[in-house]
Amino acid sequence: MARTMITGGKAVLPTGAQQVDILIENEKIAGIGQASSLAQTDNWIDAKGQIVLPGLIDMHVHFLDRFMGTISLHDFFTGTRAAACGGVTTIIDFANQKKGGSLADAIEHKRSEADGHVVIDYGLHAEITDPTPAVMKEVRSIIKAGVPSFKVYTIYEGMMVDDGALLALFEQTSRGGGLVIVHAENNFIADRLRREYLREGKTGAMYHALSKPNIVEAEAIGRIAYLAGHLKAPFYIVHMSTREGRQIMQHCRHKGQAAFAETCTHYLCLTDSVYRRRDGINYIISPPLRKQEDIEALWEGLHEGTISVVSTDDASFSVESKRMGKDSFDKVPNGMAGVELRLPVMFSEGVLKRGLSLERMVELTSTNPARLFGLFPQKGVIQVGSDADLVILDPQKKVKLGMKTTHMVTDFCSLEGLRVTGYPVMTLSRGKVIVENGKFVGRQGEGRFLHRKIDFNAIRNVR
Amino acid sequence: MARTMITGGKAVLPTGAQQVDILIENEKIAGIGQASSLAQTDNWIDAKGQIVLPGLIDMHVHFLDRFMGTISLHDFFTGTRAAACGGVTTIIDFANQKKGGSLADAIEHKRSEADGHVVIDYGLHAEITDPTPAVMKEVRSIIKAGVPSFKVYTIYEGMMVDDGALLALFEQTSRGGGLVIVHAENNFIADRLRREYLREGKTGAMYHALSKPNIVEAEAIGRIAYLAGHLKAPFYIVHMSTREGRQIMQHCRHKGQAAFAETCTHYLCLTDSVYRRRDGINYIISPPLRKQEDIEALWEGLHEGTISVVSTDDASFSVESKRMGKDSFDKVPNGMAGVELRLPVMFSEGVLKRGLSLERMVELTSTNPARLFGLFPQKGVIQVGSDADLVILDPQKKVKLGMKTTHMVTDFCSLEGLRVTGYPVMTLSRGKVIVENGKFVGRQGEGRFLHRKIDFNAIRNVR
Amino acid sequence: MARTMITGGKAVLPTGAQQVDILIENEKIAGIGQASSLAQTDNWIDAKGQIVLPGLIDMHVHFLDRFMGTISLHDFFTGTRAAACGGVTTIIDFANQKKGGSLADAIEHKRSEADGHVVIDYGLHAEITDPTPAVMKEVRSIIKAGVPSFKVYTIYEGMMVDDGALLALFEQTSRGGGLVIVHAENNFIADRLRREYLREGKTGAMYHALSKPNIVEAEAIGRIAYLAGHLKAPFYIVHMSTREGRQIMQHCRHKGQAAFAETCTHYLCLTDSVYRRRDGINYIISPPLRKQEDIEALWEGLHEGTISVVSTDDASFSVESKRMGKDSFDKVPNGMAGVELRLPVMFSEGVLKRGLSLERMVELTSTNPARLFGLFPQKGVIQVGSDADLVILDPQKKVKLGMKTTHMVTDFCSLEGLRVTGYPVMTLSRGKVIVENGKFVGRQGEGRFLHRKIDFNAIRNVR
Amino acid sequence: MARTMITGGKAVLPTGAQQVDILIENEKIAGIGQASSLAQTDNWIDAKGQIVLPGLIDMHVHFLDRFMGTISLHDFFTGTRAAACGGVTTIIDFANQKKGGSLADAIEHKRSEADGHVVIDYGLHAEITDPTPAVMKEVRSIIKAGVPSFKVYTIYEGMMVDDGALLALFEQTSRGGGLVIVHAENNFIADRLRREYLREGKTGAMYHALSKPNIVEAEAIGRIAYLAGHLKAPFYIVHMSTREGRQIMQHCRHKGQAAFAETCTHYLCLTDSVYRRRDGINYIISPPLRKQEDIEALWEGLHEGTISVVSTDDASFSVESKRMGKDSFDKVPNGMAGVELRLPVMFSEGVLKRGLSLERMVELTSTNPARLFGLFPQKGVIQVGSDADLVILDPQKKVKLGMKTTHMVTDFCSLEGLRVTGYPVMTLSRGKVIVENGKFVGRQGEGRFLHRKIDFNAIRNVR
Repeated sequence: MARTMITGGKAVLPTGAQQVDILIENEKIAGIGQASSLAQTDNWIDAKGQIVLPGLIDMHVHFLDRFMGTISLHDFFTGTRAAACGGVTTIIDFANQKKGGSLADAIEHKRSEADGHVVIDYGLHAEITDPTPAVMKEVRSIIKAGVPSFKVYTIYEGMMVDDGALLALFEQTSRGGGLVIVHAENNFIADRLRREYLREGKTGAMYHALSKPNIVEAEAIGRIAYLAGHLKAPFYIVHMSTREGRQIMQHCRHKGQAAFAETCTHYLCLTDSVYRRRDGINYIISPPLRKQEDIEALWEGLHEGTISVVSTDDASFSVESKRMGKDSFDKVPNGMAGVELRLPVMFSEGVLKRGLSLERMVELTSTNPARLFGLFPQKGVIQVGSDADLVILDPQKKVKLGMKTTHMVTDFCSLEGLRVTGYPVMTLSRGKVIVENGKFVGRQGEGRFLHRKIDFNAIRNVR
Repeated sequence: MARTMITGGKAVLPTGAQQVDILIENEKIAGIGQASSLAQTDNWIDAKGQIVLPGLIDMHVHFLDRFMGTISLHDFFTGTRAAACGGVTTIIDFANQKKGGSLADAIEHKRSEADGHVVIDYGLHAEITDPTPAVMKEVRSIIKAGVPSFKVYTIYEGMMVDDGALLALFEQTSRGGGLVIVHAENNFIADRLRREYLREGKTGAMYHALSKPNIVEAEAIGRIAYLAGHLKAPFYIVHMSTREGRQIMQHCRHKGQAAFAETCTHYLCLTDSVYRRRDGINYIISPPLRKQEDIEALWEGLHEGTISVVSTDDASFSVESKRMGKDSFDKVPNGMAGVELRLPVMFSEGVLKRGLSLERMVELTSTNPARLFGLFPQKGVIQVGSDADLVILDPQKKVKLGMKTTHMVTDFCSLEGLRVTGYPVMTLSRGKVIVENGKFVGRQGEGRFLHRKIDFNAIRNVR
Repeated sequence: MARTMITGGKAVLPTGAQQVDILIENEKIAGIGQASSLAQTDNWIDAKGQIVLPGLIDMHVHFLDRFMGTISLHDFFTGTRAAACGGVTTIIDFANQKKGGSLADAIEHKRSEADGHVVIDYGLHAEITDPTPAVMKEVRSIIKAGVPSFKVYTIYEGMMVDDGALLALFEQTSRGGGLVIVHAENNFIADRLRREYLREGKTGAMYHALSKPNIVEAEAIGRIAYLAGHLKAPFYIVHMSTREGRQIMQHCRHKGQAAFAETCTHYLCLTDSVYRRRDGINYIISPPLRKQEDIEALWEGLHEGTISVVSTDDASFSVESKRMGKDSFDKVPNGMAGVELRLPVMFSEGVLKRGLSLERMVELTSTNPARLFGLFPQKGVIQVGSDADLVILDPQKKVKLGMKTTHMVTDFCSLEGLRVTGYPVMTLSRGKVIVENGKFVGRQGEGRFLHRKIDFNAIRNVR
Repeated sequence: MARTMITGGKAVLPTGAQQVDILIENEKIAGIGQASSLAQTDNWIDAKGQIVLPGLIDMHVHFLDRFMGTISLHDFFTGTRAAACGGVTTIIDFANQKKGGSLADAIEHKRSEADGHVVIDYGLHAEITDPTPAVMKEVRSIIKAGVPSFKVYTIYEGMMVDDGALLALFEQTSRGGGLVIVHAENNFIADRLRREYLREGKTGAMYHALSKPNIVEAEAIGRIAYLAGHLKAPFYIVHMSTREGRQIMQHCRHKGQAAFAETCTHYLCLTDSVYRRRDGINYIISPPLRKQEDIEALWEGLHEGTISVVSTDDASFSVESKRMGKDSFDKVPNGMAGVELRLPVMFSEGVLKRGLSLERMVELTSTNPARLFGLFPQKGVIQVGSDADLVILDPQKKVKLGMKTTHMVTDFCSLEGLRVTGYPVMTLSRGKVIVENGKFVGRQGEGRFLHRKIDFNAIRNVR
């Protein structure tokens, strides 16, 4: 029985960071203590001067994503490989329902694209784009089958669900143990503004942002919160970008609502000024990048606990595909790659610059997504019995982010040139080293599909 | 110069009811005091033992209304005649925009139907059903032309405006001095439920109510309040029917928002139990009748000032037209006649039974609509210089409401059999007696179109 | 029967300012209208170009006040004379209970000082300084005897009432129809700070202000509101001076509490910077003058309706008596004269400079105190049947306030040198001219004691 | 080097209860994992079928307490012995300042009573009863000396601090890293009611409760929260007993205030109906026992996180001393013994009957007091490196609480006859077994004084 000991590192345990050794056995964490108090082993990993974290979870990635007539550059192999290099040991992607199709088919299809290719464990959200009565009836069986989270859009004609469908879905999930995750934008406001700008010949990248002012997101979040609250259904807002959003979430939490939000790496670093650049269209995402005061509000939300998760929304469209919209912002496929960049940004910008505690960083990137999406305590924590998904961070290592240093298969890096201090140097997936010193040493297909189950009582305490 | 003196009555002045005489001259109130302190006259109206009120204003009537393929029984002559018999001296109707048409045309058309027919003064709201960019540009000139209120629906495919249009409209009205008045129901929730019931073969009148649960109204009000608040635009919710609505309005008022609501006579008297009756379809209106606890909440709202107006939403569809929907609730033209019934109900049910003060009744039915819709102080108050629109109420007179006593040209009375104490016995329009002892003695066409102008500062104090 | 007609003026009626004539007969307003519509008379007052207001009410004056070993300069003749010259036609003073004494005795005593001396009508508040069980039992009979308002202090050893007494008092007034009016300062915080400053030898006038920071007032108001709310007892905070106070009042109003506040002329004009002047001790009052942002907040409160009354707290201590505290701020008798200054300040600073409407100014200085303290509609309004207490304001007249222009018998004017536009030129008390062009022409002792009765329903609408 | 292994038990780790073995070495927890993954040892404790918890902390006990002329039965030996038998491994008592004395002296004196006698580790709160300027200056040095929590009373003449002193204290603690813990009752309200009852001859035990209605506690908590919030000072309310208190704490938490509250075992089990019993005076404590709806609210507060701690307020006055007040409730020394009863009550009534999670029970009784009072992670958690303070609970063991089963040296048990399921069967203090099967096997004087240090960032997350 092979054992591995990680020694000398500062491990971020649930009660705080601590100088402690970790014994791994059979893919699990088998013991925590000083090495002398643990069973013997010949296989040692020296983490002296390093920080040992639970492997990160990215619950928001789009691999092999088809959108606006193009497809993302990341597939399940290259996407998870880049993720692993960024310290991520679990991703959750989306199984997109086809028009008239079932969720079960969508899941089966997506699994067929992922299984055998992923290098780390993964789960799936069911994405509902055609909320027929049949699909509503299917929801509870899908939850029982290990896919208890349901993504919907309140924007994009043809994909969006209306308030009636949303309410019907909340009814199913609130009773069945599911979590609805929502891309929250008001379709009608954005649509009217978009048409207005195009009518006036205003087609540049900046008009993408102007056609989606903060209220487009804020109104949608408020409405979702109201409908969910009516049925006491938990909900989760993806890629929240605005200060107004944070205020609404504060209000929900104060009332005791099971209301959760994530933001993404780029909303914490970049403002909409990039849309004025020559390559502005490369930054077109939805919701758009915002103002500095939104950035500040989002960091505040992370500190105070009204935003519980940071993910990446990795959607790796090529520069070429982006150029489909060079004459009209509405023709640009929305999305940017980023799955590898989260840990260095959160550590360097969050922990070092903004006083985020190491413990809070771990909650935001690993423990909270594990809790919210039904992976805890298998994932998301350094605890005896948990999967030995671990990442070792060198807190001194300085890296300039960008195309030269990334493992993402993309031709554009949104954070090109950003200098960070602190970088992952080793990633273990279920006890096995898969990245070492920036080099992927794992094997394609060794990741497994995760059957998830959400504990409604436990998620209430997530902040 | 003809003068008329109303003597011996208890007049409801702005500061309270008072035993005082009123001198009328040139269509206006010329003096208030004891007759001995006023100029002499030969023309006396004895109001001993009676109550003298400012003539009622009904800002929500649908005369000559075309809806679901039928037309209302009331035209501008019969409708205003019934109104006058019920103590109403001003009505405001709706100029419905045609698809692609202008608001100016709609107003001109509606005026052509009303002028020469109305027996009392009247105004018009512009009703926007096709919010094209051209119409948005027209809004401010319409305001200047004396039609400063704009009706929109958030429900009914083909008539409704979406959130984008609503926001665009608020932008115009908030800057131009207009007031948006909204039929607030969430189209998508109601629609999904309606289709669900019909799919299940549930077609009776009660399913009309069940397909529009309280949240259908409440969500819409909350959303409208949010959008209006974003632009600091005043708004007015018509025919509010739910306790949730009242709570939202409370919340808006607490934040200092210029948020107003009306309810209607029938929402204060009738519950949805009527839908179980054999003639249940005759009561189909939107929003539907609610529960007793909603009734209680509405009365509370009237007391506390979160609901500022009681109107009738008179839409006099015949029993025959109602029967178009005898096999399917969604085929019933929504609406009930009621323009004549408001004063006796408010006095008997409100003042006598529920402790509403006489002064508050006058505010709700006359002063507040005058203030909110730009008619004050020409209308809505007994004050020197105001139009001598007056109604004399006999507080002892007992009447059983219903087809036998009404002047409405309808074949169904929603309050059939309700016994009231207190009834209007005389109505004066600009100093001229037009109803006496329940008999219309005025002349067709003597009413005038009213050019209105809303004072944004003054409406803030309306409660 | 003598009649007087005031013609040509713009009268501030309950529904707004209007060009209208007013007929006076038998001390009352007998008719309102154009003169031609009113009864004939030979006695005309020409108010062309002037504004006619209901006479002001000052519910907060201290005449013949004994405090800290000295006595105010104003007695009931000189005080009410100065008041009348400032457009005031009613004052309410305080009947101070003696230790162990009854309220009835206090009232009788104060009436003996006032009757025969006052030149305008007056009322009394009962001031409780020794809340024995006997006094608590007396409260309801005092209410019935026409003194329904009770002043208490939460500061000043020997005069203050503690929370237990306050609660006991609220119990009596809430049931009996009384209104508790509170000087709200936290005795213990102010006392500790005062002792600390004195111990450190900090004795100058500024330390008076520093020993009473905003929280001293704010905590007390919050506590009073909580205790009153517990028993649903209306309460009224005198001389509110802080932005925090306004916030608490907003909160109370939002919850529907019958919570009222006044501020005083000087808190709207002066900051604590005066305490750094050589004559700083002359400005020592309690609460102390505050910062500019408090001034702004108070004006906001007046606009929005969380502060309902502006009074003067006239306490005319001589410069000599003030100098008792020249070496120690705690030895200065607290108070400043001001009974004459309110109308010009409110018109010039409020209406002309800060956009207060004329109507709101009348509410704050006349109608609201009349309503709150049980004098309405006898006082506080221009309405048929009301007392002909009227003041005529020349909106063009420019005056430099100060010792040269005042009728107050004081040797120090807190607003010395302030230039105002708009000044009262005539005052009528019950139909009789008592001030004309700045000259008092009335007679000592013609004022009457007012029996008051508070209407709990009506005060709820006061803003 | 002696090692001990606790095997086979379900340990409540920070992430949840888990079947795991615990290795103890040098008084600390040295390893967590399955025994086979840990270092070898000969010393085994079999916890099969049992639950292993971090030792409980009771931050509210009064040993050797002098109050109202009597002294508690528990001294530091008998008190801590009973505590240990109840699963408690740390207590915090109070060092009462003498009039005019210093806090340092009070601490020294209390340590002289405790050191050499305590059988478990202990800490002290400094209790301020005479808040002189000198004492305020002393506060920060006391914090640095390891006593960072300060108890004050807002009631009891001679001991209480007023609002001025409270504010001064908050200023010191907020800057110096201290936590103020408050016995929150409004002295003046209680005092007035007490005198009123006694005057009326109402002297029975029930009048103790009636003289302290809920508002006595609620007003005080609200005021403390306001003053603390003004200076952003954390505060902690001891023995909170009312539903109103919970609401205020909710409000504070919503605003992000560092506001904490504890309740005690008896407030969760007993109502004021006991005061009607013949032995009613034995239950006299302050605040008094309340109503069933308060009990329900307190349990809700424990669930939702607005109440963070359950303690006992052990004050073991003899039945004889209680009888000093047999003729007058105000002569009864307030207090009841209870230090041993908390764990069985919380497990049986909380976990088994009310669905409290095992993890939440541990937070309330151990982890949270450790965090709030600066003992974490040395105490309050099962984690490598923490003190091996552990208690083993037999979840099946049934016990009838009362004089027969308790180790408390008292002659009255407030929970006499209460049948519980689940009872502590072994207690380890720093790795050494001190209670085994209900028998104390430790040694007097082996407990140590704990120097504490509060982390202001960390306590913010305590719920």
